[in-house]
Amino acid sequence: MTTATTTGTATVAEELVSFCKDGRFLDAINTLYSPDIVSVESMGSETMPKEMKGIDAIRGKNQWWAENNEVLSSRIEGPFVGEDQFAVHYDFDVKFKPTGKRDRMEEMALYTVKDGKVVREQFFYNTQNA
Amino acid sequence: MTTATTTGTATVAEELVSFCKDGRFLDAINTLYSPDIVSVESMGSETMPKEMKGIDAIRGKNQWWAENNEVLSSRIEGPFVGEDQFAVHYDFDVKFKPTGKRDRMEEMALYTVKDGKVVREQFFYNTQNA
Repeated sequence: MTTATTTGTATVAEELVSFCKDGRFLDAINTLYSPDIVSVESMGSETMPKEMKGIDAIRGKNQWWAENNEVLSSRIEGPFVGEDQFAVHYDFDVKFKPTGKRDRMEEMALYTVKDGKVVREQFFYNTQNA
Repeated sequence: MTTATTTGTATVAEELVSFCKDGRFLDAINTLYSPDIVSVESMGSETMPKEMKGIDAIRGKNQWWAENNEVLSSRIEGPFVGEDQFAVHYDFDVKFKPTGKRDRMEEMALYTVKDGKVVREQFFYNTQNA
Protein backbone atom coordinates (compact mmCIF):
# COMPACT_ATOMS: atom_id res chain seq x y z
CA MET A 1 0.00 0.00 0.00
CA THR A 2 1.34 3.40 -0.96
CA THR A 3 -0.02 6.27 1.07
CA ALA A 4 2.54 8.84 -0.09
CA THR A 5 1.22 11.67 -2.24
CA THR A 6 3.17 14.06 -4.43
CA THR A 7 2.69 16.73 -1.74
CA GLY A 8 4.01 14.46 1.00
CA THR A 9 6.92 13.43 -1.20
CA ALA A 10 7.74 17.08 -1.95
CA THR A 11 7.74 17.97 1.76
CA VAL A 12 10.17 15.18 2.65
CA ALA A 13 12.27 16.06 -0.41
CA GLU A 14 12.56 19.75 0.50
CA GLU A 15 13.48 18.89 4.08
CA LEU A 16 16.15 16.43 3.00
CA VAL A 17 17.75 18.89 0.58
CA SER A 18 17.66 21.61 3.23
CA PHE A 19 19.48 19.37 5.75
CA CYS A 20 22.07 18.31 3.16
CA LYS A 21 22.75 21.89 2.02
CA ASP A 22 23.56 22.66 5.67
CA GLY A 23 25.87 19.63 5.80
CA ARG A 24 23.52 18.00 8.34
CA PHE A 25 23.47 14.54 6.74
CA LEU A 26 22.99 12.63 9.98
CA ASP A 27 20.13 14.93 11.01
CA ALA A 28 18.47 14.15 7.67
CA ILE A 29 18.74 10.43 8.41
CA ASN A 30 17.55 10.75 12.02
CA THR A 31 14.59 12.94 11.07
CA LEU A 32 13.43 11.63 7.70
CA TYR A 33 14.50 8.00 7.36
CA SER A 34 12.39 4.95 8.16
CA PRO A 35 13.87 2.45 10.66
CA ASP A 36 13.65 -0.05 7.77
CA ILE A 37 15.55 2.11 5.26
CA VAL A 38 17.27 0.23 2.41
CA SER A 39 20.36 1.86 0.91
CA VAL A 40 21.63 0.71 -2.49
CA GLU A 41 25.09 1.73 -3.65
CA SER A 42 26.26 1.46 -7.21
CA MET A 43 29.15 -0.81 -6.32
CA GLY A 44 29.79 -2.97 -3.32
CA SER A 45 33.12 -3.86 -1.73
CA GLU A 46 34.37 -6.17 0.98
CA THR A 47 33.89 -3.53 3.66
CA MET A 48 30.82 -1.85 2.17
CA PRO A 49 28.11 -4.12 0.77
CA LYS A 50 26.08 -2.92 -2.23
CA GLU A 51 22.85 -3.08 -0.27
CA MET A 52 22.45 -2.17 3.41
CA LYS A 53 19.30 -2.40 5.52
CA GLY A 54 18.14 -0.69 8.69
CA ILE A 55 18.76 2.79 10.06
CA ASP A 56 21.67 1.71 12.30
CA ALA A 57 23.64 0.37 9.32
CA ILE A 58 22.92 3.52 7.30
CA ARG A 59 23.93 5.77 10.23
CA GLY A 60 27.17 3.78 10.54
CA LYS A 61 27.91 4.12 6.84
CA ASN A 62 27.36 7.88 6.94
CA GLN A 63 29.36 8.34 10.13
CA TRP A 64 32.26 6.42 8.54
CA TRP A 65 32.02 8.61 5.45
CA ALA A 66 31.88 11.87 7.45
CA GLU A 67 34.86 10.86 9.58
CA ASN A 68 36.98 9.87 6.59
CA ASN A 69 36.13 12.59 4.09
CA GLU A 70 36.50 16.35 4.19
CA VAL A 71 34.02 18.15 1.93
CA LEU A 72 35.97 21.02 0.34
CA SER A 73 32.95 22.29 -1.61
CA SER A 74 29.57 20.99 -2.69
CA ARG A 75 26.75 21.73 -5.08
CA ILE A 76 23.36 20.19 -4.31
CA GLU A 77 20.57 20.58 -6.86
CA GLY A 78 16.96 19.55 -6.51
CA PRO A 79 14.83 18.06 -5.26
CA PHE A 80 13.31 16.61 -8.43
CA VAL A 81 9.93 15.35 -7.29
CA GLY A 82 7.80 12.48 -8.60
CA GLU A 83 4.83 10.64 -7.15
CA ASP A 84 6.39 8.59 -4.35
CA GLN A 85 10.03 9.14 -5.32
CA PHE A 86 12.35 12.09 -5.65
CA ALA A 87 15.89 12.66 -6.91
CA VAL A 88 18.76 14.91 -5.81
CA HIS A 89 21.89 15.83 -7.77
CA TYR A 90 25.08 15.99 -5.68
CA ASP A 91 28.47 17.27 -6.77
CA PHE A 92 31.14 17.09 -4.06
CA ASP A 93 34.78 18.09 -4.06
CA VAL A 94 36.16 15.87 -1.29
CA LYS A 95 39.45 14.95 0.30
CA PHE A 96 39.81 11.37 1.56
CA LYS A 97 41.51 11.98 4.90
CA PRO A 98 43.53 8.72 5.19
CA THR A 99 45.35 9.35 1.89
CA GLY A 100 44.84 13.09 1.32
CA LYS A 101 43.60 12.27 -2.20
CA ARG A 102 41.18 14.81 -3.61
CA ASP A 103 38.26 13.62 -5.75
CA ARG A 104 35.16 14.92 -7.40
CA MET A 105 32.12 12.81 -6.52
CA GLU A 106 29.14 13.53 -8.73
CA GLU A 107 26.00 11.48 -8.27
CA MET A 108 22.24 11.31 -8.50
CA ALA A 109 20.35 9.87 -5.55
CA LEU A 110 16.87 8.43 -6.01
CA TYR A 111 14.76 8.33 -2.83
CA THR A 112 11.50 6.43 -2.25
CA VAL A 113 9.01 7.84 0.29
CA LYS A 114 6.36 5.85 2.12
CA ASP A 115 4.14 7.11 4.95
CA GLY A 116 6.18 10.33 5.14
CA LYS A 117 9.56 8.62 5.57
CA VAL A 118 12.40 7.74 3.22
CA VAL A 119 12.33 3.93 2.87
CA ARG A 120 14.91 3.51 0.07
CA GLU A 121 17.87 5.45 -1.32
CA GLN A 122 19.79 4.45 -4.43
CA PHE A 123 22.90 6.11 -5.84
CA PHE A 124 23.95 6.57 -9.47
CA TYR A 125 27.37 7.88 -10.36
CA ASN A 126 29.13 9.83 -13.01
CA THR A 127 31.95 7.31 -13.05
CA GLN A 128 34.45 9.41 -14.98
CA ASN A 129 34.61 11.83 -12.08
CA ALA A 130 34.94 9.08 -9.47
CA MET B 1 18.34 34.22 -18.41
CA THR B 2 16.11 31.35 -17.38
CA THR B 3 12.57 31.57 -18.63
CA ALA B 4 11.59 28.00 -17.77
CA THR B 5 9.10 27.60 -14.96
CA THR B 6 8.31 24.47 -12.98
CA THR B 7 5.10 24.14 -15.04
CA GLY B 8 6.99 24.39 -18.33
CA THR B 9 9.59 21.92 -17.07
CA ALA B 10 6.84 19.49 -15.99
CA THR B 11 5.19 19.66 -19.40
CA VAL B 12 8.41 18.87 -21.27
CA ALA B 13 9.21 16.16 -18.70
CA GLU B 14 5.82 14.42 -19.08
CA GLU B 15 6.09 14.54 -22.88
CA LEU B 16 9.61 13.09 -22.85
CA VAL B 17 8.64 10.21 -20.54
CA SER B 18 5.55 9.51 -22.63
CA PHE B 19 7.65 9.26 -25.83
CA CYS B 20 10.24 7.05 -24.13
CA LYS B 21 7.63 4.68 -22.67
CA ASP B 22 6.39 4.18 -26.24
CA GLY B 23 9.97 3.49 -27.38
CA ARG B 24 9.87 6.68 -29.50
CA PHE B 25 13.29 8.00 -28.46
CA LEU B 26 14.02 9.75 -31.76
CA ASP B 27 10.60 11.43 -31.72
CA ALA B 28 11.43 12.75 -28.23
CA ILE B 29 14.65 14.24 -29.56
CA ASN B 30 13.03 15.70 -32.68
CA THR B 31 10.14 17.22 -30.74
CA LEU B 32 11.65 18.30 -27.44
CA TYR B 33 15.38 18.90 -27.91
CA SER B 34 17.05 22.23 -28.64
CA PRO B 35 19.26 22.38 -31.76
CA ASP B 36 22.07 23.24 -29.33
CA ILE B 37 21.52 20.22 -27.03
CA VAL B 38 24.55 19.11 -25.01
CA SER B 39 24.69 15.42 -24.05
CA VAL B 40 27.03 14.28 -21.27
CA GLU B 41 27.78 10.59 -20.84
CA SER B 42 29.33 9.12 -17.73
CA MET B 43 32.30 7.70 -19.62
CA GLY B 44 33.76 8.55 -22.98
CA SER B 45 35.50 6.24 -25.44
CA GLU B 46 37.40 6.57 -28.69
CA THR B 47 34.22 6.22 -30.74
CA MET B 48 31.86 7.97 -28.31
CA PRO B 49 33.10 11.16 -26.67
CA LYS B 50 31.94 11.98 -23.13
CA GLU B 51 30.32 15.19 -24.27
CA MET B 52 28.50 15.71 -27.56
CA LYS B 53 26.95 18.91 -28.86
CA GLY B 54 24.22 19.68 -31.37
CA ILE B 55 21.05 17.82 -32.29
CA ASP B 56 22.62 16.06 -35.32
CA ALA B 57 25.30 14.45 -33.14
CA ILE B 58 22.69 13.39 -30.56
CA ARG B 59 20.41 11.96 -33.28
CA GLY B 60 23.39 10.03 -34.65
CA LYS B 61 24.27 8.63 -31.23
CA ASN B 62 20.70 7.50 -30.61
CA GLN B 63 20.32 6.01 -34.09
CA TRP B 64 23.53 4.03 -33.57
CA TRP B 65 22.24 2.81 -30.19
CA ALA B 66 18.83 1.82 -31.57
CA GLU B 67 20.40 -0.05 -34.49
CA ASN B 68 22.84 -1.96 -32.28
CA ASN B 69 20.69 -2.78 -29.26
CA GLU B 70 17.49 -4.72 -28.89
CA VAL B 71 15.44 -3.66 -25.85
CA LEU B 72 14.06 -6.89 -24.34
CA SER B 73 12.20 -5.09 -21.57
CA SER B 74 12.26 -1.69 -19.92
CA ARG B 75 11.06 0.13 -16.84
CA ILE B 76 10.88 3.93 -17.00
CA GLU B 77 10.04 5.85 -13.83
CA GLY B 78 9.44 9.55 -13.45
CA PRO B 79 9.61 12.27 -14.35
CA PHE B 80 11.05 13.78 -11.18
CA VAL B 81 10.55 17.50 -11.64
CA GLY B 82 12.55 20.45 -10.33
CA GLU B 83 12.64 24.11 -11.28
CA ASP B 84 14.42 24.04 -14.65
CA GLN B 85 15.61 20.44 -14.50
CA PHE B 86 13.99 17.03 -14.30
CA ALA B 87 15.21 13.46 -13.86
CA VAL B 88 14.10 10.09 -15.25
CA HIS B 89 14.99 6.61 -13.98
CA TYR B 90 15.62 4.05 -16.73
CA ASP B 91 16.10 0.31 -16.31
CA PHE B 92 16.66 -1.55 -19.57
CA ASP B 93 17.24 -5.23 -20.29
CA VAL B 94 19.09 -5.03 -23.61
CA LYS B 95 20.83 -7.33 -26.08
CA PHE B 96 23.83 -5.86 -27.90
CA LYS B 97 23.16 -7.14 -31.43
CA PRO B 98 26.79 -7.46 -32.68
CA THR B 99 27.75 -9.86 -29.85
CA GLY B 100 24.38 -11.13 -28.62
CA LYS B 101 25.44 -10.20 -25.08
CA ARG B 102 22.57 -9.39 -22.76
CA ASP B 103 22.98 -6.62 -20.19
CA ARG B 104 21.00 -4.69 -17.66
CA MET B 105 21.43 -0.94 -18.10
CA GLU B 106 20.13 1.06 -15.14
CA GLU B 107 20.60 4.81 -15.14
CA MET B 108 19.30 8.18 -14.05
CA ALA B 109 19.14 10.93 -16.64
CA LEU B 110 19.13 14.58 -15.60
CA TYR B 111 17.62 16.97 -18.15
CA THR B 112 17.86 20.78 -18.21
CA VAL B 113 15.03 22.76 -19.83
CA LYS B 114 15.29 26.26 -21.25
CA ASP B 115 12.62 28.10 -23.25
CA GLY B 116 10.52 24.91 -23.41
CA LYS B 117 13.28 22.74 -24.91
CA VAL B 118 15.77 20.26 -23.48
CA VAL B 119 19.19 21.92 -23.71
CA ARG B 120 21.26 19.40 -21.68
CA GLU B 121 21.05 15.72 -20.77
CA GLN B 122 23.45 13.98 -18.41
CA PHE B 123 23.55 10.28 -17.54
CA PHE B 124 24.42 8.60 -14.24
CA TYR B 125 24.83 4.85 -14.01
CA ASN B 126 24.42 2.04 -11.61
CA THR B 127 27.79 0.65 -12.61
CA GLN B 128 27.41 -2.79 -11.06
CA ASN B 129 24.61 -3.54 -13.52
CA ALA B 130 26.57 -2.24 -16.51
